[in-house]
Amino acid sequence: MFYHENGLQYEVEVEEPNPQFAKMLQQAIGGAEGEMRVALQYMFQSFAVPSEMSEYKTLLMETAVEELGHIEMLATAVAKNLEGASPEAREAAREDAVIDEMMRSGQPRQALSAGMHAMPVDSNGVPFTGNYVVASGNLAADMYANVMAESTGRTLATRLYEFTDDPGMEDMLEYLIARDTMHQNQWHSVLDSFDDHLPVPASFPQEKENQDYNYTFMSTMREEREDPGQPWTTGPSHDGKSEYSYTSEQPDGGPPSVEKVIDEMYNEVN
Amino acid sequence: MFYHENGLQYEVEVEEPNPQFAKMLQQAIGGAEGEMRVALQYMFQSFAVPSEMSEYKTLLMETAVEELGHIEMLATAVAKNLEGASPEAREAAREDAVIDEMMRSGQPRQALSAGMHAMPVDSNGVPFTGNYVVASGNLAADMYANVMAESTGRTLATRLYEFTDDPGMEDMLEYLIARDTMHQNQWHSVLDSFDDHLPVPASFPQEKENQDYNYTFMSTMREEREDPGQPWTTGPSHDGKSEYSYTSEQPDGGPPSVEKVIDEMYNEVN
Amino acid sequence: MFYHENGLQYEVEVEEPNPQFAKMLQQAIGGAEGEMRVALQYMFQSFAVPSEMSEYKTLLMETAVEELGHIEMLATAVAKNLEGASPEAREAAREDAVIDEMMRSGQPRQALSAGMHAMPVDSNGVPFTGNYVVASGNLAADMYANVMAESTGRTLATRLYEFTDDPGMEDMLEYLIARDTMHQNQWHSVLDSFDDHLPVPASFPQEKENQDYNYTFMSTMREEREDPGQPWTTGPSHDGKSEYSYTSEQPDGGPPSVEKVIDEMYNEVN
Amino acid sequence: MFYHENGLQYEVEVEEPNPQFAKMLQQAIGGAEGEMRVALQYMFQSFAVPSEMSEYKTLLMETAVEELGHIEMLATAVAKNLEGASPEAREAAREDAVIDEMMRSGQPRQALSAGMHAMPVDSNGVPFTGNYVVASGNLAADMYANVMAESTGRTLATRLYEFTDDPGMEDMLEYLIARDTMHQNQWHSVLDSFDDHLPVPASFPQEKENQDYNYTFMSTMREEREDPGQPWTTGPSHDGKSEYSYTSEQPDGGPPSVEKVIDEMYNEVN
Amino acid sequence: MFYHENGLQYEVEVEEPNPQFAKMLQQAIGGAEGEMRVALQYMFQSFAVPSEMSEYKTLLMETAVEELGHIEMLATAVAKNLEGASPEAREAAREDAVIDEMMRSGQPRQALSAGMHAMPVDSNGVPFTGNYVVASGNLAADMYANVMAESTGRTLATRLYEFTDDPGMEDMLEYLIARDTMHQNQWHSVLDSFDDHLPVPASFPQEKENQDYNYTFMSTMREEREDPGQPWTTGPSHDGKSEYSYTSEQPDGGPPSVEKVIDEMYNEVN
Amino acid sequence: MFYHENGLQYEVEVEEPNPQFAKMLQQAIGGAEGEMRVALQYMFQSFAVPSEMSEYKTLLMETAVEELGHIEMLATAVAKNLEGASPEAREAAREDAVIDEMMRSGQPRQALSAGMHAMPVDSNGVPFTGNYVVASGNLAADMYANVMAESTGRTLATRLYEFTDDPGMEDMLEYLIARDTMHQNQWHSVLDSFDDHLPVPASFPQEKENQDYNYTFMSTMREEREDPGQPWTTGPSHDGKSEYSYTSEQPDGGPPSVEKVIDEMYNEVN
Repeated sequence: MFYHENGLQYEVEVEEPNPQFAKMLQQAIGGAEGEMRVALQYMFQSFAVPSEMSEYKTLLMETAVEELGHIEMLATAVAKNLEGASPEAREAAREDAVIDEMMRSGQPRQALSAGMHAMPVDSNGVPFTGNYVVASGNLAADMYANVMAESTGRTLATRLYEFTDDPGMEDMLEYLIARDTMHQNQWHSVLDSFDDHLPVPASFPQEKENQDYNYTFMSTMREEREDPGQPWTTGPSHDGKSEYSYTSEQPDGGPPSVEKVIDEMYNEVN
Repeated sequence: MFYHENGLQYEVEVEEPNPQFAKMLQQAIGGAEGEMRVALQYMFQSFAVPSEMSEYKTLLMETAVEELGHIEMLATAVAKNLEGASPEAREAAREDAVIDEMMRSGQPRQALSAGMHAMPVDSNGVPFTGNYVVASGNLAADMYANVMAESTGRTLATRLYEFTDDPGMEDMLEYLIARDTMHQNQWHSVLDSFDDHLPVPASFPQEKENQDYNYTFMSTMREEREDPGQPWTTGPSHDGKSEYSYTSEQPDGGPPSVEKVIDEMYNEVN
Repeated sequence: MFYHENGLQYEVEVEEPNPQFAKMLQQAIGGAEGEMRVALQYMFQSFAVPSEMSEYKTLLMETAVEELGHIEMLATAVAKNLEGASPEAREAAREDAVIDEMMRSGQPRQALSAGMHAMPVDSNGVPFTGNYVVASGNLAADMYANVMAESTGRTLATRLYEFTDDPGMEDMLEYLIARDTMHQNQWHSVLDSFDDHLPVPASFPQEKENQDYNYTFMSTMREEREDPGQPWTTGPSHDGKSEYSYTSEQPDGGPPSVEKVIDEMYNEVN
Repeated sequence: MFYHENGLQYEVEVEEPNPQFAKMLQQAIGGAEGEMRVALQYMFQSFAVPSEMSEYKTLLMETAVEELGHIEMLATAVAKNLEGASPEAREAAREDAVIDEMMRSGQPRQALSAGMHAMPVDSNGVPFTGNYVVASGNLAADMYANVMAESTGRTLATRLYEFTDDPGMEDMLEYLIARDTMHQNQWHSVLDSFDDHLPVPASFPQEKENQDYNYTFMSTMREEREDPGQPWTTGPSHDGKSEYSYTSEQPDGGPPSVEKVIDEMYNEVN
Repeated sequence: MFYHENGLQYEVEVEEPNPQFAKMLQQAIGGAEGEMRVALQYMFQSFAVPSEMSEYKTLLMETAVEELGHIEMLATAVAKNLEGASPEAREAAREDAVIDEMMRSGQPRQALSAGMHAMPVDSNGVPFTGNYVVASGNLAADMYANVMAESTGRTLATRLYEFTDDPGMEDMLEYLIARDTMHQNQWHSVLDSFDDHLPVPASFPQEKENQDYNYTFMSTMREEREDPGQPWTTGPSHDGKSEYSYTSEQPDGGPPSVEKVIDEMYNEVN
Repeated sequence: MFYHENGLQYEVEVEEPNPQFAKMLQQAIGGAEGEMRVALQYMFQSFAVPSEMSEYKTLLMETAVEELGHIEMLATAVAKNLEGASPEAREAAREDAVIDEMMRSGQPRQALSAGMHAMPVDSNGVPFTGNYVVASGNLAADMYANVMAESTGRTLATRLYEFTDDPGMEDMLEYLIARDTMHQNQWHSVLDSFDDHLPVPASFPQEKENQDYNYTFMSTMREEREDPGQPWTTGPSHDGKSEYSYTSEQPDGGPPSVEKVIDEMYNEVN
């Protein structure tokens, strides 16, 4: 079960409110690289870990709970960038300041639907969707999903860092980037703690694979090309189980033959 | 620019058509783990690689093109599982065979909208969405997205393998699993070809991060707990740049203070 | 069955066309608080009312039909804000006026996809979705959905009112706000016309509920807290059937135990 | 900030695992009436409450945190209904039991994408979307959204109750229904704690509304009809501020006149 | 403005209720080929027609209004297929009849969210979306969209016809198919009423096009092929303005050159 | 199977980079009228054509492959409009040029998620969805879908042409418009190559339709109106099989009667 405490995980201050930066921050809340995604992703992954592997189950849930706190920090940051304008600026709002920016800058729902607050949407205004959540039930696959989520998430945070000169926002982002550093490292450490896990899933009997094509780079250039001698066309494979090779020939399975379907589908030419 | 040849990349045969398996195969076409996702993901990543790094640009596009061919194979497999019923079975269709299964088993659009053919949807019938595509512009982040896509993709293929006893479908899946093995390996080899790339993005000056929290595991258990001595709470960090530590204390940023907004938003209690 | 008459329900005039306000108005067409939602919501609710309760069936359908007329009014308002620019302004359009605003202000599809007309999207440009429609089959639940829809809808209309100084737009909104007042009142009157309907659904035998937790406020603060004596922690419950109480203890169901799943799912660590 | 404890809020037992019921339970997780919706809705509403109204801010956040715990309970229930089959049943899985049901009954992603675990989707397999979340910034509007969410949510729970005879599932649902009773009551109590809040938003100066149409029921029947004397056509209005009246005449704003748009839109007939 | 009359446009009877057929009918309500799409499509197209072309404006709105009545008919058909089970069947519902089918056959929301009624979703359970609506502002383009909508719609209706032996359902579908015949014809007649409208938009000065490629079929087969002499590679073009020709050469624009972006995007390899 | 060659199909040059035009171009990539739609639409249609009709199967696939090359061209055009700013402009980016426009103009994800590159989204920032793809299995219906797609697509291209004065962008669009001209013509030529195909599907036995309503225009105006004598109310029908007629009477199927549903749905008033 869950608990909450009425303190932000890390302080959130804004010196110069900026409605445009509020819009950008939405990507870190409801976007594909955002905190709603990782919070729910780690939570659903934890739900699926069997009880006898409690160290992984706990690790995932603890990190999920931390990410919930990041949503709270970012929602505060959005609100402060929208609301915190100086009294003078606020008085002038009807003319051209905060509201005007909301209208011009393309996230009007923040004013119309949410009265100047954070929303579960991304920076383009598209709602968060459960599609973003990866929880495959296979821990190694999940860990790569997590490394990827933290990689794109940290890339997002560093880009946001470039869009602001506000000391408060910089301080908050330096903290969030630091946490992303930790989280990238910890998911790698989980992978390190597994025995051989490549290729994912390693539990599938690899001898059942088609053995002619599992370490061969297959070129699809229209004109045949020599093996370019790249690290992915020659030398030992990354998983150490074979050697890479190169071919310009796709196996060629012959033309796709599709029969006419039953009459009741009205699939005729006409 | 692109070209096509009227042969499948690898042959696709179905001995015992099975409408339910056709539904399952849709996940490998339009699902989050499917071929439309990787084809478009590698293509948009390739679009974003600068010309002077042509070996990466080419690698991504060649693999994208191969994945286009996998969509074609799977669409053929779906059609063969839906259409290929024996003449006797087909005659009886109105009573209870193919069409009846379409009605009962929850993917009625395959009959109603597509006349018994493949569709750009997943196995739950939900349409493919551009949300699945990750193309961040940062190659290391993209590579982790690709490893993850191939990891969940190969996990999907091995699960599909368990749902069929058809020799043709097994042969096709053994080929696709083999290609996933190659692709997982090649994306790892790309990461190996980079100098230091962790944490992603490595190009952000790491000294700007908050140095107190970038290698510290922060527990969110309600009750304080000793350092459990896991590989992610102690010892060298995965990126080799620091030592992990452990804390039960979140930094605590104080209560989130949100001011009342401007009157024109009708945000009052009432 | 339905009919139409070639007159707007209420006149729509625009004195000073404003492409940005056109964008805002889209929220009232295709947004979560918009007219497409209530028109379809009341229509599908009416479809589900049994014939012997015709006064409710009729009420819902008549209001649905009125809302169709509001879509028509708003679509006219959008077009007039996009098209009605003065001849001089229109001549200058290629340089920087109407089209330029469409490009800058974030709803480019109104120009590119609709040639300067209304679309079934919200003010962020996200398409209307059937997700917004609530038609539960339980009339009391539906009425609360309708009160909510009219509450957020009237809030939207009052906010739109703040974004315009155009006398024509003000007049149209004063009319629409008036209708929202009526509709809020009428859904409350429907609830008043029911015998005891709380908690919804009241038809579920309430003695089957867990009797220890149905009128107890359960605090989730990390640190235990005294009963704060709020109207929702003490005193008679709103439905008049019990007394509120307060606890800091969640019941605690023990750790979630999840077993390992069958092998064919490739759910191993790896 | 948030915390978690490794105990479910209330115990979750399943005597007779049932994959079909697992599918039904997904509606209570990722559906329009589900726990992800209310957890995020109360959380985003709390984010938007000004600090000086801390009793409401706290109430919303505490309830949000409780709902997070309900997601955890339901995810456990889904897993137990999918995984907990008896050893004999499990051995036979390849033939026709659990996996076969997954294939037949229309939620194949639970097997293919999640390896037999809960997912952030509804019972039709459609992913959770941020569209469901209502957080308007106006507390009265939000409360009606919450009453509605708990009304449709409790209706869902009582329907789920009818779909199971499993004692464990019945016990869990009796608890969840009890909590819905409390939550419906508490949101009503919040409304009771406000001064006059109708029509929402009450802060809009009501004299600005069009006074001819704000308490008039406007019939849209094709044929004129006498005032049917319903509680919404005659007598005092629900908000006590006026009298209902009845008309068969819509105001009639004249035909919608839309001018031809600028040439660059290629809007001609052709 | 709109009106409604309490009679279905055409009678809807069901002799043998069939929950599976109810699911299929949903495609005709909320699906890509369904009535919500055409009702809204014709309505938004009508909104965009200038007043001086009132014959088209009226035609579109009248047909939209008829389609609203078809939604009403289909919603009645869904309800009758779900509710109309004989008293005996209804008594047995808890065991295995109606409810059991809802659980098994993959549209559980119809029971859980709508209490056995029609919903604004398609037959896969995916909600209707404004994406389906085409209203381009160009009447010729819109007419092709309408012909296409009625073509796929009539195809859907004929497929539904194959899924039922119920006399009432057959009668309803024979009526709806007849209306589709009329609507296909009428949109073609609108196109016939235009002067030259091809290629759409014809109002773009065709001499501005690249004249080397506007009537040339460009083969993308990997291997060069002779002109196959099809009606689209040789002879007069369909619009009568030129002659078709054939080439195996794509123009070849040289490699796509993409420069490195500004540093602040953290787009490096790493 | 597919191939690629490292040359654009046609050259793409940008003289004056323009971030706003980059946003507009996204509509031609991931929008309802864009190249992703037609590429996938023609591809899935080709998948469904039986082998014995190879001329249609090939035509569809070749055109699909050409459209893949158009995505590549447009992605290059987006990148050049975002990245190609002059060195001086680029240096100033932090202040107000490219990045500033990204922030202001409403497509911030292009910076935040893609590092200034093309994305699979439309010009409003909404992701591409499989919903756009029409592949019905009926070739005539598909051809009208293709004519419509090319009609709205060419209309989009001509509008984009109006939004730019850049010689490179004009040259690219002149080429793409030319290809749309060819594609519109070729789909019409396919329809010409069929015997009688109207009304679609023509293979449904037309005598089964309700013969009273298949060539009758049914007015839904509230007030009865004389036959207006339009080409769709009188004279031979477009398909040449009958005569149009006119009526102001809808058939009238009597009130929709919906019975009360089984008790377990908690559908009562309350």
